[in-house]
Amino acid sequence: MSLMLEEITEQPVVLERTLNAEREKVGKLRQFLSEKEIDLIVLVARGSSDNACQFGRYLLEVNCGIPVSLSAPSVYTLYNAKLNLERALVVGVSQSGEGTDINTVLEQAKASGAFTLGITNEADSTMAKIADETLLIHAGREKSVAATKTYTGQMLHFYNLVSALSDAKINFEKIPHYVAQVLQLRTQVQEIVERYVFMENCVVVGRGMNYGNSYELALKLMETCYVVAERFSSADFFHGPLAIVERRFPMILFAPNGVTKQSNLDLLTRLQELNADSFSITNDEEIAKLSSRYLQMPRDLDETLSPIPFIVPAQLFAALLAEAKGLNPDEPRSLSKVTKTI
Amino acid sequence: MSLMLEEITEQPVVLERTLNAEREKVGKLRQFLSEKEIDLIVLVARGSSDNACQFGRYLLEVNCGIPVSLSAPSVYTLYNAKLNLERALVVGVSQSGEGTDINTVLEQAKASGAFTLGITNEADSTMAKIADETLLIHAGREKSVAATKTYTGQMLHFYNLVSALSDAKINFEKIPHYVAQVLQLRTQVQEIVERYVFMENCVVVGRGMNYGNSYELALKLMETCYVVAERFSSADFFHGPLAIVERRFPMILFAPNGVTKQSNLDLLTRLQELNADSFSITNDEEIAKLSSRYLQMPRDLDETLSPIPFIVPAQLFAALLAEAKGLNPDEPRSLSKVTKTI
Repeated sequence: MSLMLEEITEQPVVLERTLNAEREKVGKLRQFLSEKEIDLIVLVARGSSDNACQFGRYLLEVNCGIPVSLSAPSVYTLYNAKLNLERALVVGVSQSGEGTDINTVLEQAKASGAFTLGITNEADSTMAKIADETLLIHAGREKSVAATKTYTGQMLHFYNLVSALSDAKINFEKIPHYVAQVLQLRTQVQEIVERYVFMENCVVVGRGMNYGNSYELALKLMETCYVVAERFSSADFFHGPLAIVERRFPMILFAPNGVTKQSNLDLLTRLQELNADSFSITNDEEIAKLSSRYLQMPRDLDETLSPIPFIVPAQLFAALLAEAKGLNPDEPRSLSKVTKTI
Repeated sequence: MSLMLEEITEQPVVLERTLNAEREKVGKLRQFLSEKEIDLIVLVARGSSDNACQFGRYLLEVNCGIPVSLSAPSVYTLYNAKLNLERALVVGVSQSGEGTDINTVLEQAKASGAFTLGITNEADSTMAKIADETLLIHAGREKSVAATKTYTGQMLHFYNLVSALSDAKINFEKIPHYVAQVLQLRTQVQEIVERYVFMENCVVVGRGMNYGNSYELALKLMETCYVVAERFSSADFFHGPLAIVERRFPMILFAPNGVTKQSNLDLLTRLQELNADSFSITNDEEIAKLSSRYLQMPRDLDETLSPIPFIVPAQLFAALLAEAKGLNPDEPRSLSKVTKTI
């Protein structure tokens, strides 16, 4: 079994452990933040962590009513801009805690008066030393180059952050249970992989809470399967990219039951007219009916809780597709685990 | 000549006209904004307009020191979130001014106490009626489905916005002159197109001020040439996508002389090791030397002024490549000019 597959299956345990280990700290953070005036949340990350932030921005804006900016680190590191961040909460997200540019942004934000928070898997990392407070992922070392358990761990901490910043009641303690449940889809994922062994291109689509997942699956497919994976929101898809959909160009869709359902139905209807292939990860019957293939997700899963359970079969898909293609997902060409961008 | 090519060549005139026609309004806007406390700028757009906003975010943050959030319209339109935007300037950007979701966000932002600004080509549009103030692009009707002159017109208004919000001295009145100059590269672009007639995939890379251009050229290539065009920042490129670069997968690079030069040099060096093809739009000698092909941009062009002149030969490239591929760039498959997303 590849390291990637091994780490995918560890996720229910990692998520549960992370919830328990950080509960007290989240409570303290809530108390601390209640005394501050936070007008803006800035999220700083790259790669998979940035995809987790894409999710975080929706979760935070929708549930806390505080606008979120996904930071462009170059603004600080290359252009040396000094932003007014006095009433901002700046959150750095990095598996290793050693992303040079992310840490530079945190340092500069702190100097500009922002309260800084780190989300990382490494308690002794540079990030943990810089940030005013740190939420740790308790994933154990992540050995696979393709991030899986730290990606969902990062996402989990955005729920924690919502509970520290608002009175929204989201029952996210149930997420590890759902993740254990969807891991049982592995045999079905293996069957679906058969259909896509010779896939060279694809489009991955998600919207709203699952928009970040479309970027994450696309990244996994590029890293581990060398599939050229375009990623879009189903909203943007009609602004151009639709022109490249062809028979040989399947679409993979994250389509939970919920507010994004109608736009996903519209998209699938259009794809059917174009005779294009679609593979949906969904817990909605109508979506399933319009898809060439689908994976049945738990019916009682609320859209707000869907992003973590929905990415898990997608991770399985990437890991198993790599193997079916005769590739080792643990050894992507030309990549290393820690990327030092400046 | 295609409508697209015609409209590309109109750009020096359109930009000059837009500068002159809106100068007085920008002055008034400056006076008005100087009395307001703006903590945050929110940019709202989709498609090409969203790519213009990617540029706008860098220009505004670097020169005004005000954090920028690129809005996710679904937060308002699907999730009905109420964001605290009392000290925000919310800028809607739309060629037609009829993007339903963009206008919904503007309305909701206005209701939340934000000052709203529209950037559009249509004086009588819904956007112009909703927004507190409007900066008009004076492009005449844009007939081509692929936006060109309105894209650069939108970019130009971000310079106007900087001059309304800060004391930064950017000599952007020179931009129409540079655009006229680079339009003379058409013959050279035509020659370079020869090499890429059978290109089916490519990667478009830009960073910082030219990051939005990489998205914009990729979109143009998808819309008009059906080339599958991945787009990345040269910073993110080492986080995974590098694994898919192969000989058959050329990279197109926006590489002005300036602060992004070193990371672009690193990227080109890595590409050479991998034997990959590169085509750079650059005014830097070292970049040119490391590239398989390059277009020589004006040497005296400052990085801050580069994004508009740099996209113009890229627009020419997309329009001429479409023709060389036997396609009509004015009639993209399955697309319409105004996209009504909700």
